Amino acid sequence: MSLTFYQVAAIIVSVLAFATAFWLYKWVARQPSSNERIAEVGKLIKNGANTFLKKEYRTLVRFCSVAAILILVFLPSPIWKGEIINNITMAVAYIAGTIFSAIAGKIGISIATIANIKAAEAATKGIKPSFMSGYRGGAVMGMAVVGSSLLGVTLVLMLSGNTSALLGFSFGASSLALFAKAGGGIFTKTADISADLVGKVELGIPEDDPRNPAVIADNVGDNVGDVAGMGADLFDSNVASMAAALVMAASLSDSEKHIGMVICYAAIGLLASIIGVFTANMKEGGSPTRALNTNTYVTTAIYGILTAIATYVFDFEWRIWAASAIGLLVGVVIGITTDYFTDDTRKPVHMVAKACESGPAFTILSGISYGLISALPAMIGIGVSALAAYKVCEPLGEGFAMFGISMAAVGMLSIVGMIISNDAYGPIVDNARGLVEMGNLGDKALEITDSLDSAGNTVKAVTKGFSIGAAGLTVIALLGAFITEVNDAAAGLGIAGIEGGFDVTNPTVFFGLLVGAAIPAVFSAMLMLGVDRNAQRMVGEIHRQFDEIEGLKEGKEGVVPEYDKCIEIATTGAIKELIPAGLVAILSTLAVGFIGGVNAVGGFITGNIVSGLIFALLMSNAGGLWDNTKKYIEAGNHGGKNSNAHKAGVVGDTVGDPFKDTAGPSINTQITVVSLVASLAATLFLTLSIF
Amino acid sequence: MSLTFYQVAAIIVSVLAFATAFWLYKWVARQPSSNERIAEVGKLIKNGANTFLKKEYRTLVRFCSVAAILILVFLPSPIWKGEIINNITMAVAYIAGTIFSAIAGKIGISIATIANIKAAEAATKGIKPSFMSGYRGGAVMGMAVVGSSLLGVTLVLMLSGNTSALLGFSFGASSLALFAKAGGGIFTKTADISADLVGKVELGIPEDDPRNPAVIADNVGDNVGDVAGMGADLFDSNVASMAAALVMAASLSDSEKHIGMVICYAAIGLLASIIGVFTANMKEGGSPTRALNTNTYVTTAIYGILTAIATYVFDFEWRIWAASAIGLLVGVVIGITTDYFTDDTRKPVHMVAKACESGPAFTILSGISYGLISALPAMIGIGVSALAAYKVCEPLGEGFAMFGISMAAVGMLSIVGMIISNDAYGPIVDNARGLVEMGNLGDKALEITDSLDSAGNTVKAVTKGFSIGAAGLTVIALLGAFITEVNDAAAGLGIAGIEGGFDVTNPTVFFGLLVGAAIPAVFSAMLMLGVDRNAQRMVGEIHRQFDEIEGLKEGKEGVVPEYDKCIEIATTGAIKELIPAGLVAILSTLAVGFIGGVNAVGGFITGNIVSGLIFALLMSNAGGLWDNTKKYIEAGNHGGKNSNAHKAGVVGDTVGDPFKDTAGPSINTQITVVSLVASLAATLFLTLSIF
Repeated sequence: MSLTFYQVAAIIVSVLAFATAFWLYKWVARQPSSNERIAEVGKLIKNGANTFLKKEYRTLVRFCSVAAILILVFLPSPIWKGEIINNITMAVAYIAGTIFSAIAGKIGISIATIANIKAAEAATKGIKPSFMSGYRGGAVMGMAVVGSSLLGVTLVLMLSGNTSALLGFSFGASSLALFAKAGGGIFTKTADISADLVGKVELGIPEDDPRNPAVIADNVGDNVGDVAGMGADLFDSNVASMAAALVMAASLSDSEKHIGMVICYAAIGLLASIIGVFTANMKEGGSPTRALNTNTYVTTAIYGILTAIATYVFDFEWRIWAASAIGLLVGVVIGITTDYFTDDTRKPVHMVAKACESGPAFTILSGISYGLISALPAMIGIGVSALAAYKVCEPLGEGFAMFGISMAAVGMLSIVGMIISNDAYGPIVDNARGLVEMGNLGDKALEITDSLDSAGNTVKAVTKGFSIGAAGLTVIALLGAFITEVNDAAAGLGIAGIEGGFDVTNPTVFFGLLVGAAIPAVFSAMLMLGVDRNAQRMVGEIHRQFDEIEGLKEGKEGVVPEYDKCIEIATTGAIKELIPAGLVAILSTLAVGFIGGVNAVGGFITGNIVSGLIFALLMSNAGGLWDNTKKYIEAGNHGGKNSNAHKAGVVGDTVGDPFKDTAGPSINTQITVVSLVASLAATLFLTLSIF
Repeated sequence: MSLTFYQVAAIIVSVLAFATAFWLYKWVARQPSSNERIAEVGKLIKNGANTFLKKEYRTLVRFCSVAAILILVFLPSPIWKGEIINNITMAVAYIAGTIFSAIAGKIGISIATIANIKAAEAATKGIKPSFMSGYRGGAVMGMAVVGSSLLGVTLVLMLSGNTSALLGFSFGASSLALFAKAGGGIFTKTADISADLVGKVELGIPEDDPRNPAVIADNVGDNVGDVAGMGADLFDSNVASMAAALVMAASLSDSEKHIGMVICYAAIGLLASIIGVFTANMKEGGSPTRALNTNTYVTTAIYGILTAIATYVFDFEWRIWAASAIGLLVGVVIGITTDYFTDDTRKPVHMVAKACESGPAFTILSGISYGLISALPAMIGIGVSALAAYKVCEPLGEGFAMFGISMAAVGMLSIVGMIISNDAYGPIVDNARGLVEMGNLGDKALEITDSLDSAGNTVKAVTKGFSIGAAGLTVIALLGAFITEVNDAAAGLGIAGIEGGFDVTNPTVFFGLLVGAAIPAVFSAMLMLGVDRNAQRMVGEIHRQFDEIEGLKEGKEGVVPEYDKCIEIATTGAIKELIPAGLVAILSTLAVGFIGGVNAVGGFITGNIVSGLIFALLMSNAGGLWDNTKKYIEAGNHGGKNSNAHKAGVVGDTVGDPFKDTAGPSINTQITVVSLVASLAATLFLTLSIF
């Protein structure tokens, strides 16, 4: 009964989120847009994004169909051994996960390709209307993603009555996110790097100059990579954190109440985000960065207060509330320390900018070094929050300690609606900036969109800290979920499960640990090589167009480049490259499991988490640092634009692009996928492994 | 009785190694040297190296004295709680470790600064005499290092009768190695990068041009970084692997026999290396690479056969022999796969070279990507060898499985004498090349030393694979040693020790794991930032000299740059930077131990090993890959010298320099130091930790 109450509440809040998204969508769509040139370019961007998405989804439908069939046959246990209904449930949940994720991505693209036009046009009127268009556009995505993840999880739970099915739903979301993030990430950085390299570096024409054949592809990339890909990524993290917590809750004493608690907290997080979105505002002349960050903190506070009230009213355990609050607080702390390494008023940016004077090699060396150092505070933060959540909840009884960790992850991700809104805001205003430039809307509008764009970059550091931290906690919780799954399966089979946990002095665990640690390295390398190869192709195409199309370089009236050729290259390349890297992660998990059994997999997940977190932090932060260093130099420091330091800064930024927007954020998803594959295939590993 | 027999045998073999070293030293010294210009430059190099070494050792004497006093007071347990004789033994063993290591480094420098002159002069006569001078010079170092490590370990064992004291000896060797490697690594790369940047890149003058003020510092750097630093590093690895095996052996049933076995195998490894050194030869016109690699394989085979005979004669366990053979074999396999990623006839070098055409950002991205991928085979290799050694020895009884892993490490390092000989050969012929250029010995001699130098770079890949693999296995064994130490201490204190091992689902272990994994990142970043800062200073100084010293740039007769100024900058900078990074590693271990106790430390060591191995592999291999890519382009590919691809290649090489010669190889030592500190402070962590 009580369970149903929370589920109904969650569904109501989800619907409220969709209503909010719809209202915001309408609001954005109502904003004026009259400039024809902008409408025309906006249409090119929209079409490019939709074409890519269609092709990407077509590829993914094939992949997911194969995966769904394999799940149907083999998971949770081979169809000839277990009950067929479990396999059907799992396969359906998986498919639902992919569909929900795909829809969220599609909604994001739809609004982003409207909001960019509105924000561009509004920039001619002032910073406030432009900010509001960008922000509310982003919030549509935020509401849609969080609403659909909460709704999806609640529905799967209600219909299957089975928390294991949630792992299937979550795996569906993750596998889609893995490829969407990888594909979108490769697309966006291929276009971005190529456009910059030929446009800004070789020819010295401005960013977003309409003569550049890659300029539309670059703007499409912002949408498919940073909006759709990012949305799929956070949809996945959010679902995974809820799934892990619910799987753990189901194995606790008084499981109904704790399942209800997870749902209740998640619903409150969404409610807090809805309130946060509406309180978002900025004064004319105010700072967009402050406006964005204030929202985040306001939402955090609302969440803390509302969950405390709920805990009091529904008589939940205060210790679990504390675990979730710890998660959220540590998320804020990680965000702030991450910010330190990328903020252009701080030492790291200044030191790297100085190093640029000595040439690109020093830019790279110092940037990588600060990136490496930046991993430490976040790693300590994740470790401390897991330890604290565990210790706080341990006295509640068996299983509560790990549940505490999963609730810390839920807490850290509670404001995910806010995070997505802020994150989607970034590419929207980045696009708006491009439209202002291409539509010749004047210097003042350009200045406004520039400042909005730069705010987007800055808040990204904070939100990235959150999402990496939450992914870390979630996968620790998923490690617990894996043990639960293995032991359930072992009990069913009448064989020994996992006693205690994974002992690193067991060489099978250690073997898994070493291999698992190498996977994020290989995975991110494959994505970066994909960008590298693809960008080399596109650079060739841009050169060809400038060479062959007469009058293009000179900007002759009426001469337009063949934008679609560049979009085509980015699309084809990204589609080709997005599958192999993801497959490496999934297949290596299966290989280790079939060779070394559940102990090797436990080690594998652990190694994967540890090295995945370090590489994600290194790449995200070094990338952000280089980006801001370049901007800092462009602002007139160390010789300013076109100085040698600037050239070195551009090299750093180019290296940083796939670091921070392709490989780094994809690693998050990769570690989640590995953990989920492991949990889903637990029975297979128990019965079929060689050792 | 039997123990004494092996010890006597070990001492005899050690003395034989010293005799060999002495004979080789005399042989090298007997080689003709008549060119005055070369003698003069050679003297500058020798003085520079000795000055640095003196300053470095002076700093280290202070550090080690403080460490020795702390050990005396606190280790193995606080002086007021345990028996004072244990503390005195530990402190003395520690000091002995530092002294043996320092002597080995000093011997290396002495011979290297003679052999370089001889090899340069011999190059006018042909490739064979030049090769022999370089190789036998390197072999002096090899024999001295391995002889003194075997002798030191045997003596400490005889005099203390206590395997724990070996950890003190090993820690002495490690702490010296940590600083010697860091200091030497910063020195050598500061000079190398600065010399190249101003000389080759800005002014377009050849490498080793005597007009370049940093040219002598660069050659000094080869000696202090690549000879003395590398020697200290491998001295440390070798001692650590023996110490770990001996600590484990002592806790086995029939411990005397197994202690004897470890000593016996180590002595056979040294004997095999002595034979290998004397069979080293090359025909006029032959390939120096093949000569070097053939030696390695010959030594490997001799070791395998002799240990099999010893196992038969002395009735050792065949399973343990198998474990050691597995280690050695896997070492070879890792070496070969590592070679793939850096060999200029293979795909990675060709792909990176092609990427250079698109500019330095692509050079960096593709190089890092291949470096990341290169970690996978080695990680699998280390994991498989640990697993196989464990499983092979497990049936022998309790404790034998971990002992098997330690014997795999001993096996992998058995040919360390050969590895050091090959490794020291590299900088000697590199120096010789510089001397040939500065002494104007003609194009033929330059060609010969070029080909010898390039062979040195190639075999480095193989030997690096060995040393990283061995470090991995050694620290796994040290993790076992840590548990042994903790449980011994716990038994003495009448409290609970570690049951089973370290369970990663224990959040205290996981906390340690996350923090431990971040340490190699921070450590290597600090070293790279040290090089970065220092090189910026030296570049400034070189510019000043070219600006202020009249006629220098034009190469006016009689005008010489102020070489000593550059040596001074490299020395001061390196001395200043070498302590902090090392302290971070040591203090973070202590901090984690005092906060989280032995479980956190177990996780810490594990995380440290895992991420340390990945970063060591990434940095070493990416660095080697960039180095060879640059050379491949210089050989006339993708536009050859002074093309845009070449400029990008130089950026890659400059980034790669501190990767492969400062940070990468220092990480090996860092993980060993962390493991040893943990074992030594086991009692303190048991009694004084907060949680």
